Amino acid sequence: MSQSKNITWNSSKLTKSQRQERNNHKSLVVWLTGLSGSGKSTIANELEQQLFNMGQHVYVLDGDNIRFGINSDLGFSDADRKENIRRVAEVAKLFVDAGVIVIVAIISPFESGRQLARGKFEPGEFVEVFVDCPLDTCLERDPKGLYRKAVSGQINQFTGITSAYENPTRPEVIVQTAQLSVQECAAKVMACLNAKEMLTCER
Amino acid sequence: MSQSKNITWNSSKLTKSQRQERNNHKSLVVWLTGLSGSGKSTIANELEQQLFNMGQHVYVLDGDNIRFGINSDLGFSDADRKENIRRVAEVAKLFVDAGVIVIVAIISPFESGRQLARGKFEPGEFVEVFVDCPLDTCLERDPKGLYRKAVSGQINQFTGITSAYENPTRPEVIVQTAQLSVQECAAKVMACLNAKEMLTCER
Repeated sequence: MSQSKNITWNSSKLTKSQRQERNNHKSLVVWLTGLSGSGKSTIANELEQQLFNMGQHVYVLDGDNIRFGINSDLGFSDADRKENIRRVAEVAKLFVDAGVIVIVAIISPFESGRQLARGKFEPGEFVEVFVDCPLDTCLERDPKGLYRKAVSGQINQFTGITSAYENPTRPEVIVQTAQLSVQECAAKVMACLNAKEMLTCER
Repeated sequence: MSQSKNITWNSSKLTKSQRQERNNHKSLVVWLTGLSGSGKSTIANELEQQLFNMGQHVYVLDGDNIRFGINSDLGFSDADRKENIRRVAEVAKLFVDAGVIVIVAIISPFESGRQLARGKFEPGEFVEVFVDCPLDTCLERDPKGLYRKAVSGQINQFTGITSAYENPTRPEVIVQTAQLSVQECAAKVMACLNAKEMLTCER
C-alpha cells in the first residue's frame, strides 16, 4: 500500500510479454540466499556470464552493491534488513518487467523476508536458490574478514554469529558450495531453469 | 556514503560496455521533469514505443508507478521528495549499468534534486528534458483531478500550488507541450539523442 492516495498508475504501452518476445526468453528472478561467504556473488557472476554468452539479457543485483546505492541509508537492524529486502525485490520486479533475467545475491536471512519478495512476483518468476554452506566453512573462508570482526565483537547483528539465518523451507534449488565447484553449482541452477523452460520464450 | 563499513563492492564480471556493445546502443537516462499534467508520462510512453520499434532496449520509470513499489513508504514532504528522487536515480543507474535506455518521468521539482540525480551518471549519460507547460494549462487539463483537490485544500504540498517547481536551468531539451504535439515533443528528444550519437554504440 502506498503512502499517498494521490497517485495513479500509468500504464506503459509496452508489456512484459512484448519485451520477453523481443528478447526471446522469459524474464524472472533467481534469488540466491545464504550466509556471508557461502558463495552467492561468485555463483551469481558465473550464472550471469553463462546466460550472457547464451544471448540472454541478464543482470546481477548484489546485496552489498545495492547497499552502496539505493539502500545506502539502511543498516543491519531487523527492520532495516526487512526494508533492504523489500527494496531489492521491488527493483528486481522492475527488471523482470523490463524483460531481464535478474540474479539477486543477498543474504536475506529470514523466511518471512524471502516470502515477501516471492509474493511480489508471478508464479514461476521467482526461483529461490539456497546457497548452502556450513557456518564453519564460511568462518574459515571469511573472504571479507567479517566473521573475524563479528566473533571479536567489532560487528553487531552479523548473520550466523549474532543474528539468525533461517534455512529456506522450499527453495527451488539447493547448491552445497562446500562440496560442489562454482561450475557445478551454476549447472544445477541452469538445469532448474531449463527444466522449467524458463530460458525460452513461449511462442 | 553507506551506513555500513562492513560491505565490499563485488565487481560483476560483465561491464556496461559489454552490454552496450551487445545491445548495439549506448545506455543512458532521459529524465523528464515538469509539473503534474505537463505530459511527462505521455511523452515517456511515446519515446519508449519509438525506441523499442527501433530495436533498442528501453524502459520507463514513472514517478507515480515507483511510488506504488519501491517508494511506497514515502510521502510528499521536502525530505521525502528528495529521497524519492535519490532512489529513482539509483534505480535508473542500475538500468543504465545493465545497458538499458531508461526514461524517467517524474515531477522532480527542485534543481538540487535533479543535480543530485545527474551527478550519479557519467557525462553524456543524463539527458534532462524540461516538459514545459504553463501552470494554467496543467490546471485546465487536470488529468487526474489533482489540481482541483490541491486548490480546494484537500491535498497539501502539491507542486505548482502549495509547493514550488523550479524551472531547469540547463536542460538538454525543452519541449513545450502546450504548443507541440506528443509526436513533435518526442521528435525533439530523439533529435537530441541522435545529435549526441547516443543511439548507436561506438565500435
